Amino acid sequence: MELAPDNTVTQKHWQELAAEKKERQAATIPKEWILTNLPPKEQLSVIDFPEKSGLLDDKEIEITNTEIGGLLEKLAKGIWSAVEVTTAFSKRAIIAHQLVNCLTEIFIDRALKRAAELDEHLKTTGKVVGPLHGMLYVSSEDPFLSSSKGLPISLKDQISIQGLESTMGYVSWIGQYAAKNSVLADVLEACGAVLYVKTNIPQTLMWAETFNHIFGRTLNPYNRSLTSGGSSGGEGALVALKGSPIGVGSDIGGSIRIPSAFNGLYGLRPSYGRVPYAGCVNSMEGQDSVLSVLGPLCNSLNGVKKFMQSVASQRPWLKDPLAVKKPWNEEEYQLIDHGEGKRLCFAILWHDEVILPHPPVVRALEQTKQALLKAGHEVVDWKPLKHMEIYKTLGAIWAAGAAEDYRVTTAPTGEPVIATMELAVDNPNLIVTDTPTFRPLAEGISAYDLWQVQRTRRDLRQEYLDHWNGSVALTGTGRPVDAIISPCAPYVAPPHGKNKTASYTMIWNALDYTALVLPSGLFADPVLDVKKPAHAFFNDLDKANYDLYDPATFKGAPISIQLIGRTLDEEAVIAMGEIVDSALKATAVQSKL
Amino acid sequence: MELAPDNTVTQKHWQELAAEKKERQAATIPKEWILTNLPPKEQLSVIDFPEKSGLLDDKEIEITNTEIGGLLEKLAKGIWSAVEVTTAFSKRAIIAHQLVNCLTEIFIDRALKRAAELDEHLKTTGKVVGPLHGMLYVSSEDPFLSSSKGLPISLKDQISIQGLESTMGYVSWIGQYAAKNSVLADVLEACGAVLYVKTNIPQTLMWAETFNHIFGRTLNPYNRSLTSGGSSGGEGALVALKGSPIGVGSDIGGSIRIPSAFNGLYGLRPSYGRVPYAGCVNSMEGQDSVLSVLGPLCNSLNGVKKFMQSVASQRPWLKDPLAVKKPWNEEEYQLIDHGEGKRLCFAILWHDEVILPHPPVVRALEQTKQALLKAGHEVVDWKPLKHMEIYKTLGAIWAAGAAEDYRVTTAPTGEPVIATMELAVDNPNLIVTDTPTFRPLAEGISAYDLWQVQRTRRDLRQEYLDHWNGSVALTGTGRPVDAIISPCAPYVAPPHGKNKTASYTMIWNALDYTALVLPSGLFADPVLDVKKPAHAFFNDLDKANYDLYDPATFKGAPISIQLIGRTLDEEAVIAMGEIVDSALKATAVQSKL
Repeated sequence: MELAPDNTVTQKHWQELAAEKKERQAATIPKEWILTNLPPKEQLSVIDFPEKSGLLDDKEIEITNTEIGGLLEKLAKGIWSAVEVTTAFSKRAIIAHQLVNCLTEIFIDRALKRAAELDEHLKTTGKVVGPLHGMLYVSSEDPFLSSSKGLPISLKDQISIQGLESTMGYVSWIGQYAAKNSVLADVLEACGAVLYVKTNIPQTLMWAETFNHIFGRTLNPYNRSLTSGGSSGGEGALVALKGSPIGVGSDIGGSIRIPSAFNGLYGLRPSYGRVPYAGCVNSMEGQDSVLSVLGPLCNSLNGVKKFMQSVASQRPWLKDPLAVKKPWNEEEYQLIDHGEGKRLCFAILWHDEVILPHPPVVRALEQTKQALLKAGHEVVDWKPLKHMEIYKTLGAIWAAGAAEDYRVTTAPTGEPVIATMELAVDNPNLIVTDTPTFRPLAEGISAYDLWQVQRTRRDLRQEYLDHWNGSVALTGTGRPVDAIISPCAPYVAPPHGKNKTASYTMIWNALDYTALVLPSGLFADPVLDVKKPAHAFFNDLDKANYDLYDPATFKGAPISIQLIGRTLDEEAVIAMGEIVDSALKATAVQSKL
Repeated sequence: MELAPDNTVTQKHWQELAAEKKERQAATIPKEWILTNLPPKEQLSVIDFPEKSGLLDDKEIEITNTEIGGLLEKLAKGIWSAVEVTTAFSKRAIIAHQLVNCLTEIFIDRALKRAAELDEHLKTTGKVVGPLHGMLYVSSEDPFLSSSKGLPISLKDQISIQGLESTMGYVSWIGQYAAKNSVLADVLEACGAVLYVKTNIPQTLMWAETFNHIFGRTLNPYNRSLTSGGSSGGEGALVALKGSPIGVGSDIGGSIRIPSAFNGLYGLRPSYGRVPYAGCVNSMEGQDSVLSVLGPLCNSLNGVKKFMQSVASQRPWLKDPLAVKKPWNEEEYQLIDHGEGKRLCFAILWHDEVILPHPPVVRALEQTKQALLKAGHEVVDWKPLKHMEIYKTLGAIWAAGAAEDYRVTTAPTGEPVIATMELAVDNPNLIVTDTPTFRPLAEGISAYDLWQVQRTRRDLRQEYLDHWNGSVALTGTGRPVDAIISPCAPYVAPPHGKNKTASYTMIWNALDYTALVLPSGLFADPVLDVKKPAHAFFNDLDKANYDLYDPATFKGAPISIQLIGRTLDEEAVIAMGEIVDSALKATAVQSKL
């Protein structure tokens, strides 16, 4: 708002405000990193471009291609400085941004300054910075990590950093600079992380793709005609292009797992409160029933583990009133409640009785089954219990007040609430007639009626837990199934605007189960993944999903699987994830022989 | 509902239904235990009556007077059988009921049958019943407890037991027999407990006294003109009369702590999810923000500890989807985060800036301060932060849908929603004009507006946590204060109908802090606790509370204190409670010398 010459208050049009912000963003990109040799817009896969761009030298390529374990080791031993590592990832992040439009806030100057301070302090004192500074979590096996520092970590836009904006794609939030760090930003800096970029999201966050009026659309680096997923789509695309070693996303219905799956990453949706959320901005604040959670997206499962250990090491429950008091539990990681992992029983959810997955997804599940059997584990079928009802119940809880939340948030500038993510929306003046799945159109309901929906959901949680416990009859291990393996979505990354259902991820948010996404190592292949004859459809969503499948469309998209454990069982799920990951990799090696 | 001769549906009047249920209850009381020598109604204190009643023999008096540790030891060694112990507590419970009207469901036959089975099984096999049966939690120091079994435990009416009603004082719920046990009933039976009675509550549970249209009013055994508190008032009165060694209550705003305080007991309000709640009936089901919790009321702190250890030993998070995965943590109990308890810093909340406590309460706080200083601990003053705002916010969350909840629940029989607990209400036809504090009169609000209130509450939780952490500047220990000591209420047990505020307990529910009530060992005394001159009142509530105080009215009521720790810190709070308890007892001994 500003005063006009006649002293009346005028306000700029929201599009003008958005354009100004976008210009400010452009000015934060180091000029010498702006590429003139970008691939043509029509080129679908850009996953290999960063290393061919000419901007990265050999050492920077080596740094950014190094798995997190090696990266931490090199940093700890001082072989690579924090400045070197931060520079390498910053450069690659800027390349990624020019390819797929994945960043929001860019603050590389500030990051390099901090990296230099960390380097200098270590050099002059021989010590890491302060009792809480300078180490990513040290396990007893990795003593050399005790002085590691300077690991760059990218954050989803909503995770507040002092002095920066968290617009979350809302024009109305432009110019709101965070007075202080979110708890997680503090925790990560205390662990020795260097924060350098924030990443793109959909307006409202409540959408499984990534587009907003300020920063535009994030594309999938494996195939730019496909979505990067959402809401942590900026993270998904950035990490896939190795512009970040660990990205932090949030997940209330699949927002970490969908971008992880669509971009071939490891991504963890921890249970409520396991990672501190305090101090972030968000949609639907005050909705206390189905909580959004923060978690990592990485190129290795080890990155997921290191992230969770590091966060727990800082005892976030002393800083965030909603964080659960649960330190990293090494016994649970050793699978003490799962026969020490020697002979696990996995249950495969082939479909959720809501939507039948496309052929590439089924192929990955079959491969996983074979790999696990070969590795000596049991595999049984998982019978879905009321997934449609749970899916609808979760949607009803969100819809209770979401429309008013969006209206109130967008009112100051009059920016429209985005109602489709079809490609046409890139021209925001276009009228769209699409019926959105992720956008509650209805007016809200009463608090009492919300309680009734929440009561239904609680009862469904009890039923599902009883169902899980009852699986002891199927396993032959004397235990209920150790984990469920499921699709992440009924498809691999679909074209922009087509990611309209999230039944395979929302179910676990509703139940608050720990859910890990792993790449299967496979990619959608028109030859292998031919279209099947039509089946008896579960419902209209299922039919629409069947109709969507055309093998050529999805070519080259990574295929991922989801591994689900119980509530607050992150340690065991990561450990079982390692077992599944090893089995899949062993199968991949074998099939190459 | 039943069919009239002309086939129209008729329904009995709610008062008729209530009377029938009350008659059914009377029939469950063993006839030989009905006393004819009860003290006159005008006799205020009945706390000593059970032992003088003539119904209990010496051994039964010894059993029911034995502290929980000794009781478990005698049971474990087979010195007392489960049948003997169950009989003794059952008898004393029936005596208590005739004095203060504390029971709802009475199922002693069933309890004695189970006790006999436990005795028989142990005798014939030398073993406890099954891997989950027959032991209350075994700590490494108490190996003799490994075969203890048969401890009677009383449950608040809402805690469902298979085959029994949980009317919760609603006439409309008469005849609804539980199809299965609540998770806690299962857990306690797996620990070897014998369930034998359920206890009285206020209709709706949302009231800090105990009265309903079916079972009537529970009185305070120390002074029957005073309230037993609520909503776990039946437990409070029963345990005070030693009709139960451990009672289980629930607490959403003080419902364990208020009856504990008013009846001179130890009572713990654990954090959300620490004790499994699944399968209980409740008010305001689906209200997911401020959760009710279950916890123990006992005559010793050791009873509180054994209860919490026992429940955790059964891993309730595998059975209740809302139970937190947190085993009993012995290191936390050893106060590893509190300098091993050697020199603690307690902060005393003298008043909450909402209501100034009456003189007896202040006297107990002063005695506690002196006792702790003498024991070598630090004591500082606690500055309340926005207690009125937090208190109002909590009330607003409940009010969002409570009125409709009560209307819907009472609609089937047309029973009135109770609007006062003044003595006049014992005649339910009387019209009352009292304005209730615990009863939301307003219509509810929208889900979106509820979210805004919940958001305010979340922000207040963050502010309070920061406030706690900031107390590191006051302590001299290098830590923030270890615990807060506070009144439980601004008064000791007040006359019936006068317990209208709960700011001293609701605050900790809003913040989800662990809160333990301990008896100070002192009792209200008209000579010591003279009325003070009027102060500058904080507000009308404060003035009304000042006006309420007349030293003679409260004579003989126990004075209690509250000890508050952080969220999910039950182990540390119990350990610090032992330190406070010892200090108070040492002072009591000294002042007697």
